[in-house]
Formats: sequence, structure tokens, C-alpha cells
Amino acid sequence: MRLVSYRASGRMEWGAVKDGGIVPLGGSDGRWPSLRAALAQGGLAEAGRAALAGTPRYRLDQVELLPPIPEPEKIICVGLNYAAHVKETGKASPEHPPLFVRYPSSLVGHGQSLVRPRISRAFDWEGELALVIGTGGRAIPAARALSHVAGYTCLMEGTLRDFQAHSSQFTAGKTFWRSGACGPWLVTADELPDPSRLTLETRVNGKVEQHSPVSDLVFDIPTLIAYISAITPLVPGDVISTGTPSGVGGFRSPPVYLKPGDTVEVELSGIGVLRNPVIDEQSPMAAP
Amino acid sequence: MRLVSYRASGRMEWGAVKDGGIVPLGGSDGRWPSLRAALAQGGLAEAGRAALAGTPRYRLDQVELLPPIPEPEKIICVGLNYAAHVKETGKASPEHPPLFVRYPSSLVGHGQSLVRPRISRAFDWEGELALVIGTGGRAIPAARALSHVAGYTCLMEGTLRDFQAHSSQFTAGKTFWRSGACGPWLVTADELPDPSRLTLETRVNGKVEQHSPVSDLVFDIPTLIAYISAITPLVPGDVISTGTPSGVGGFRSPPVYLKPGDTVEVELSGIGVLRNPVIDEQSPMAAP
Repeated sequence: MRLVSYRASGRMEWGAVKDGGIVPLGGSDGRWPSLRAALAQGGLAEAGRAALAGTPRYRLDQVELLPPIPEPEKIICVGLNYAAHVKETGKASPEHPPLFVRYPSSLVGHGQSLVRPRISRAFDWEGELALVIGTGGRAIPAARALSHVAGYTCLMEGTLRDFQAHSSQFTAGKTFWRSGACGPWLVTADELPDPSRLTLETRVNGKVEQHSPVSDLVFDIPTLIAYISAITPLVPGDVISTGTPSGVGGFRSPPVYLKPGDTVEVELSGIGVLRNPVIDEQSPMAAP
Repeated sequence: MRLVSYRASGRMEWGAVKDGGIVPLGGSDGRWPSLRAALAQGGLAEAGRAALAGTPRYRLDQVELLPPIPEPEKIICVGLNYAAHVKETGKASPEHPPLFVRYPSSLVGHGQSLVRPRISRAFDWEGELALVIGTGGRAIPAARALSHVAGYTCLMEGTLRDFQAHSSQFTAGKTFWRSGACGPWLVTADELPDPSRLTLETRVNGKVEQHSPVSDLVFDIPTLIAYISAITPLVPGDVISTGTPSGVGGFRSPPVYLKPGDTVEVELSGIGVLRNPVIDEQSPMAAP
């Protein structure tokens, strides 16, 4: 099942993709106002039956797609998690997963514009596989970790390299307003029993810039869930982005960065293509 | 005005401290369910008038105090922001504020127990001055930054030093479940027009471990607000913790760490004392 969150007629809704359209799944009584709420209430199976029986109300191109979980409690990102990427950055291989955080306002949905901020020109791509937690927990054993995953999606972990390098902590370069994207949808975990078999590819204006099997992850998905949940309780809707492979632009000589008019695509086999154009920020006060 | 969030009879409420008691300020029609909501709706002045006219309903010791903003959108922390602390860590002085993030589940209120996790013994204190954003904004100029502050509070930025050192990114050691504290209350900014004049002191079992004027901050509060809001839009209720002075336990030889039975106090002149006992985590599954 492919699940989307979207805005239609000014309202935020969510639903399942069926026959190229969207079957809304908020529940007839509105008891699942969001996909996150449905996950928290264990309502995904019932929603799936509703999707099978339902008729699409919208075409996909009639709505504004949002990240599958527009307002997660957490978006935890993992740095330096593909060996070839560690090598291109010139950094040392970490013994544990380096974690940092993005805020929801740093991500747009499929088709929405990525924003290059006025105060940086070092706007780089990072294609990633992200997972969404379905069943929360703390100290989740790696052997059971995949059973806590609701599904998988693509994430463009857009980075301002100069701000990332402002200090030892990556945060400043990693959570710029609308600098990243997530989507187009969440593919439920029953369709992807072994996420390590997926292949990740990032294209800029159609040119392949990153291409890697997910099996090249240094810290695999069960290891990441076990490590993170030993620190902080995971709750339904939490997003973990698993890291980017080699082929980013900022560590080339000379560096290559995104500019207005570019199109970035992050594709994962078995999930789909997350496609976003790049624009320049119009005004520093345009943000909410 | 001193504002508190608390749990009474199982309900989360907020109010003003008056005559050693609490005047609830949710609004007679419940239109401000939280202090964060009141800030977002610009309701603080009206709430203040209600507090002046109101009668305390609870004694402070009758309620469970929570962090002043129990569920902020953001808790952004600043590392290495007092020169003497930079020196004790042996790290290089950063040219820009190193930012990292805590999640709300990592903080308890005044009087609640700090939890030493089962998987680490390197539990260290960090006393800090924290501010709460009242008026949101992006690209806030430093000259106007203090007008965006709703008030100030104490923050115990409890850190698991071994996990902090797991990689270059501090996150893993900085957001353990209930490893920090915030409170006891928010002192509104009208009472503290110049926060750089405050003095910060951290005591463990009554012994002074950290003592510093806030004027020793490397990056002062207006600079922090300008820098962070250039990256991400700040919203009402966002918390910025400004960094810790020298005197933490983990960089001593041998290191000194918190253990069950200890009491940690973070005091800021003009605000008050945040006091918390330390306990051991009972079970890895005790968390929600």
C-alpha cells in the first residue's frame, strides 16, 4: 500500500494511492486526522481495507503532496553511513552511528520546490532511504526492529555545506527551511520485507549522481533502530533517514551545488521517485 | 511573572506563581490549553492580568511541575559557549555556535527524578540558562532578538559522555530519556531586561561545581537567536539553551559522574533554583 499526506482545498488529509488516484482514509468519523494518528492508534490495517473498498476522490496531480508524515515528533538522520561516502568526505569512519536532527519545516513534499537560502550558495543533494516507525518502543532489540517499521520512503537530505562546516555539529547545515524533501509516499513494510535489497539513485537534471545498493549501509536498519531506541523512546510517525551514499556535490573539486532551475530526483527501487525543483528564496521574511 | 506548567489531578495545566501558590491561567473558556498556545496567540498580557486578579488554587508542592513548555517544537542547544568550558573539554574554539538538539522526552520538571540509564554510567551535569521564544520569526536581526523572547528558565542539560563521544555528533549523548531537566518556572522577559547580568551556578549535593556570569557567553543571546532563526523559523515556545560554563564532571581526571541519590541544582540569579534527584532506570522498558 502506498500512503500519501496531502493538501486538498486547503485541508490536510491522507490516503492511499489507487489506480493513479487517492482514496482518502481519514475515517468516516474523522478519527484518524493524520497518518501519524492512524499509526498511533494501530489503524493501518483497517485503513487498508477501506482503501481496497474505496474509490479515488482525487487524481495525484490535483493535490499538493506533503511529506508522508508532515509533522513527525522526530526526524533523526544518520551521517557517514555508506563507506564510499565516508571516503569522499575525508572523515574518519565512526564506530557508532553519528546522529543529527532535522525539523519538519526543513522538508517539503514531492513536487514542491526546494529552497536555496539567500545566505548560502553551497546547497548540496543527499539521496536517502528513510523509514517511518509504526510501533513505538524503547530499547528495541535489533532482531525485532523491522517489526516496528510502518514503511519506507525517499528523502532528499538537502544540506548547506558551508553551514554544516561552521562547527563540529552538522545541525546548522541540515535543517534549513524547505531545504529537503520526503516522499512521494510511504510504501508499507509488508511490500518491502527486506529493505536492504533496495537500490538508491539520485539524479540532478536527469544525470545520475548517486547510485548504491542499500545493502552497502555501514549500520543497517535494525542496528539503527536498536541504537536510537536505546537512547530515546521512538513513537509512531518518527522518521529515521539512513544516510547517503557517495556522489554528493560538495566534496568534489571543484564542488558542484544545486541552483535555481535544477531538478533533483531520489529514486528507490520498490518505492518510487521523489522529484523536486530548486528555487531561490524570495525574501528572508517569506518563511512563516 | 513566574509561569509554570504542571500536572494536577492527572490534567496538564499552566498558571502563574502567586503567594507561594499557583493561579491557573488556561482561560475560563479553555482557549489557552498550554503556555505554548498562550504564547502563540499573544495571550500573555491578558493572562498576566488574570493572574493579578486571581487566587491561587494549588500550593506549589501540591502539583507535579513539568518543564515550563512541556512539548516545544524545538529544543536547540549550544555547545562550547563558555571559553573556560571549551578549554576544559580540550576542543577547539568554534567560529560559529555548535548546535544540537534534545527531544522533549529528555527533560523532566523541577523536583522530578533525573534518570541514569542502564546502558551508561557517564552521566554528567551541565547547568544552563535557557530562553523561550515568545514571538516567532525567521532571520531575526540581533538588534531586535531580545524582543522575541518570552522569558528565561534554568536547564540541566544532562549528558551521557560516552554516548556523546560515540561519533563527531553529540546527539546520542544529549537526548537520553529523562536525562535532563527544565524549570522550575519561566520568568517573563520584562523582569530580566538584560539576561547577560545573571549568574549561573550548578551544585551537586550542595557543593558548587559550576559558577559563572552569563556575560561570559562566547555567543550571546541576540547572536544565537539571529544565527538560529537564519536557518530555521522559530515559533512560540521554542527553547534555546545557551550552553554550559566550566566545571562539568566528565573532563576531570578522574571523571566525576552523577549517581543515584545525588541531587543536582541549577540556579540562576533572578530566576530561581531547579532541583532534581538522580535515580537509576528501573527497566529498559519502563519508558513509554
